[in-house]
Amino acid sequence: MSAIILSEHDFRQEFREKIHAIAPDYQFVTDTQNLDWSQVILTIGWSSEWEKPLLAENHHLRWVQALSAGVDTLPLNTFANQNIQLSNASGIHAQAIAEHVLAALLMDTRGFTQAVVNQRQHRWDAETIDFRYLGEQEIVIVGTGHIGQQLARLLQYFGVAPIGINTDGHPVAGFSQTYSLQQLQQVVPTADYIINILPLTKQTYHLYDEAFFQQMKKSGAFINVGRGPSVVTSALVTALQTGAIRQAMLDVFEEEPLPAHHPLWSLANCVITPHVSGVVPHFQKVFMEIFLDNLQQFVTDGQLARNQVSLRDGY
Amino acid sequence: MSAIILSEHDFRQEFREKIHAIAPDYQFVTDTQNLDWSQVILTIGWSSEWEKPLLAENHHLRWVQALSAGVDTLPLNTFANQNIQLSNASGIHAQAIAEHVLAALLMDTRGFTQAVVNQRQHRWDAETIDFRYLGEQEIVIVGTGHIGQQLARLLQYFGVAPIGINTDGHPVAGFSQTYSLQQLQQVVPTADYIINILPLTKQTYHLYDEAFFQQMKKSGAFINVGRGPSVVTSALVTALQTGAIRQAMLDVFEEEPLPAHHPLWSLANCVITPHVSGVVPHFQKVFMEIFLDNLQQFVTDGQLARNQVSLRDGY
Repeated sequence: MSAIILSEHDFRQEFREKIHAIAPDYQFVTDTQNLDWSQVILTIGWSSEWEKPLLAENHHLRWVQALSAGVDTLPLNTFANQNIQLSNASGIHAQAIAEHVLAALLMDTRGFTQAVVNQRQHRWDAETIDFRYLGEQEIVIVGTGHIGQQLARLLQYFGVAPIGINTDGHPVAGFSQTYSLQQLQQVVPTADYIINILPLTKQTYHLYDEAFFQQMKKSGAFINVGRGPSVVTSALVTALQTGAIRQAMLDVFEEEPLPAHHPLWSLANCVITPHVSGVVPHFQKVFMEIFLDNLQQFVTDGQLARNQVSLRDGY
Repeated sequence: MSAIILSEHDFRQEFREKIHAIAPDYQFVTDTQNLDWSQVILTIGWSSEWEKPLLAENHHLRWVQALSAGVDTLPLNTFANQNIQLSNASGIHAQAIAEHVLAALLMDTRGFTQAVVNQRQHRWDAETIDFRYLGEQEIVIVGTGHIGQQLARLLQYFGVAPIGINTDGHPVAGFSQTYSLQQLQQVVPTADYIINILPLTKQTYHLYDEAFFQQMKKSGAFINVGRGPSVVTSALVTALQTGAIRQAMLDVFEEEPLPAHHPLWSLANCVITPHVSGVVPHFQKVFMEIFLDNLQQFVTDGQLARNQVSLRDGY
């Protein structure tokens, strides 16, 4: 009876061969038809449909390797109760997300956010656009981990000295100042751009609420590449409709896919991308660097070598 | 009888005072009503309506200080025949244009060009977007002057080693390779992005024609922040409609403003901005640094200190 690796995605032959070289007794499976769920010892990725059959009484699941950095949609408490280890893919998305956020920032400072709206009406209008140098903007990055640091590094080349927010306000290289989450409101009123990169936790759920958007400058913009439920979406819609803030650029939403009838789609001052800021070119290659390290360790002593997630903290 | 400075735009009091301190006998005028055209000795900016009254037989015009870098819309031959000196505002737009082009590039590599089109239809679609790292793109910059060099500098921070094109192919710092305009076709077939920054001259008029777009990769994109008439617009429209190239991002056009009925407005693979790539924050301040240097020299010996344009070459 061989152990099974159940994977949400298929991987190229070269990577399946590497898996086999490290764990020759393990069978790599992507199809759940006729699957003997009780033999699955680890998964790559996760599906909510797997939960019931995979965690039945006689299960052997010991490890879940997530494909993403965020693991908020996974049943962390159940994993903790059943001694199932969890690792994520944190780190591999940093450059992609940093380039996504920089695209959003430069689109806005150079007037593309207005130009794409004007284009729909075939309208040539340079007069209403307020052009700004990126280097003169006050930019607050909420989240100073891998991604925030990579973003800060790129911003420095444009002359930006970003302000960082993290749990306890500890200093981080590349940030001119750092504050704790509790001190967030100190930097909100003067910020030109506030960028959320935080994972979804109890502390960040509905962090960006009506009071937050009211504190922002009317000329300010909000960028979210973290998680949708960190935002009270109705409050954001109102802030955009009433001009309490000038612009939003959103990659994540409380409900995904964003429903076709949602008011955010039609707002002229909201740019929507379909949860893609973390999409990584050459994903299989960079993901496998993490997974194969962990698999090697796992077959040796049942432990993980890197990227293990605290099931209590959720990141 | 005082000499007159005729200016296309008004300037703030602080700058009018500086002009007066350097040239106390000169009168600064923006209104052409009741103007004694024969007393205009220099202009800031230019208007086609000025040409006839300003160049009448008894004129005293000696110097035109353009507000832009490009001077292709000015009567260069007439200036040459009448010994009127011309200076431009080259140099002050470099950072703005570099940030504009970087916005365009990152919008495209991170899928915003498709996302803004999908948003019009309230369509959540990540599957059809091809995400790429900017640093892995082959980027050709046609024009290696101030602007091209500043763009190359920013691109290096993303890992890009851009290829440069200039008149004779001379090497330029920041470019991995350089070719002459005559050698352009050597680099076209493999380029992911071709960016035109050239001024409009006899050599660059209709440089980008049907043959050019046919040579480009089908997955390639064309960005124009130089001058519209460098492009055969009908050939570009066809290339975008037939998929000969994937994407265009255009800031300049053969006819400006782009007419409301023009087919470019409605193409899903064309992003249009209204000739704004060179719009500079704090324009008056940076422009006056050039103008006041020149004015000081002009009142001393009738010469210009910087940014003089060759009336034969047009730049």
